[in-house]
Amino acid sequence: MNKIVIPSTHPRANSLLIRERLIEHFAKGIVSDAGLFAHGRGEAFDYLLGERTTENALVAVTAAAAALLTGKHPVISANGNAAALGAEGIVKLAKVTGALIEVNLFYRSAQRERAIERLLKSAGAQKVYGVNQAASARIAEIGGERRRVDPRGILKADVVLVPLEDGDRAEALAKMGKKVITIDLNPLSRTAQFATITIVDNIVRALPALAIAAEQLSKKRQNRLKRIQSDFDNKKNLSEAIRLINNRLSKLAKNGTYISIH
Amino acid sequence: MNKIVIPSTHPRANSLLIRERLIEHFAKGIVSDAGLFAHGRGEAFDYLLGERTTENALVAVTAAAAALLTGKHPVISANGNAAALGAEGIVKLAKVTGALIEVNLFYRSAQRERAIERLLKSAGAQKVYGVNQAASARIAEIGGERRRVDPRGILKADVVLVPLEDGDRAEALAKMGKKVITIDLNPLSRTAQFATITIVDNIVRALPALAIAAEQLSKKRQNRLKRIQSDFDNKKNLSEAIRLINNRLSKLAKNGTYISIH
Repeated sequence: MNKIVIPSTHPRANSLLIRERLIEHFAKGIVSDAGLFAHGRGEAFDYLLGERTTENALVAVTAAAAALLTGKHPVISANGNAAALGAEGIVKLAKVTGALIEVNLFYRSAQRERAIERLLKSAGAQKVYGVNQAASARIAEIGGERRRVDPRGILKADVVLVPLEDGDRAEALAKMGKKVITIDLNPLSRTAQFATITIVDNIVRALPALAIAAEQLSKKRQNRLKRIQSDFDNKKNLSEAIRLINNRLSKLAKNGTYISIH
Repeated sequence: MNKIVIPSTHPRANSLLIRERLIEHFAKGIVSDAGLFAHGRGEAFDYLLGERTTENALVAVTAAAAALLTGKHPVISANGNAAALGAEGIVKLAKVTGALIEVNLFYRSAQRERAIERLLKSAGAQKVYGVNQAASARIAEIGGERRRVDPRGILKADVVLVPLEDGDRAEALAKMGKKVITIDLNPLSRTAQFATITIVDNIVRALPALAIAAEQLSKKRQNRLKRIQSDFDNKKNLSEAIRLINNRLSKLAKNGTYISIH
């Protein structure tokens, strides 16, 4: 009854197109160099997962959509990679759930923030938080520039979607009592472990899936949405993702199948 | 009796320094953008392997060093990432084994080739093959610019070390009857599968290990070196690498240990 229906037109992550987009946005200063390496790591894990939104990930997507819909102040955080790969998905999800969109970078610079803001606005965002002086609040548990958030956005959010996030920052948000939803292809990362809901999937598949799920769930009653979240167990979710990777590794090893790197 | 002794000063891949070096060389046009993503994928596999030269990899290193020492025309192929991360190791290994060094790029350009040549020469290389017009020969099994090799180098090599190589090209060289040695953190890659000897390790550890192994083995007799190679089984080697990853994944999942992404 909670089964989200994903259409066949759902994007299959086209790795060459994605790389081109990242390099293009790296040249524009939107994606950082750390973002390029992080993407490569994601590619390795995506292959190990089978490059598809698993049943397991879909359960997490459903719980995440429910969390965003029931949140009083939901916020979607956007860093360079998330904006480069998912600006349209972020904007659509924000519209369906009423979430605010906030630029939240590990490596802040006025120029990068403005560039990401422009990118999100050209994808249809009405208002983008966290840009330059607007990121005037501080999260206590983190040091330096990385602690800066918008007092109207992430600071007072009760639910926050932080795709491709750093472990320290995910931990800090969780410690503040916020529901932390993340999208991370690596089920072993600190972020994956600290989040309330970890969607172990490629962001180019997960964001559209989240938007679809939110649309379908928006018709359901609050009680149903709360039950979906309380039924969700992130530890089981992560164990299952690791089990899937292990199984696939063994299968690939037996069949002598291989990854084409280029 | 064939046990190679690796000193405690052996480099532990410092990921931040490595990334800095790659970005620096990317800016100089030595490393391609595909090279940055490939490095990220390598980081994921290196973590899964435990970021160390495994016993298993050391056996492959030993066989590889023996192959280079017994080869009549050994050649070390250098692409952007290999040069950026291992120029000194390549030069040292070439000196110890008498191997030629050849620039061999997936994405050729006169500028990149010359930049890589300069990098290798500043690391001590006397002569670098495969630069610009010198790469005048063609390997039949591959198309386009990627088939170009130096007739004095890779074309007539009987043993070739091609670290971080593309699957198609590794396959073509193997089909030509050459002994193909590769360094690849992904035991599932086509390159890993097609090579004669696959060193499943990080290039920053593997190249110094190869140089040390070659030095220690250079005192041994040819018969011993040939036996080391005939005793080596690449399929078993790759299965063992995959098994190690499987075990580590299960362990990491149980302990709730995680990767710090930043």
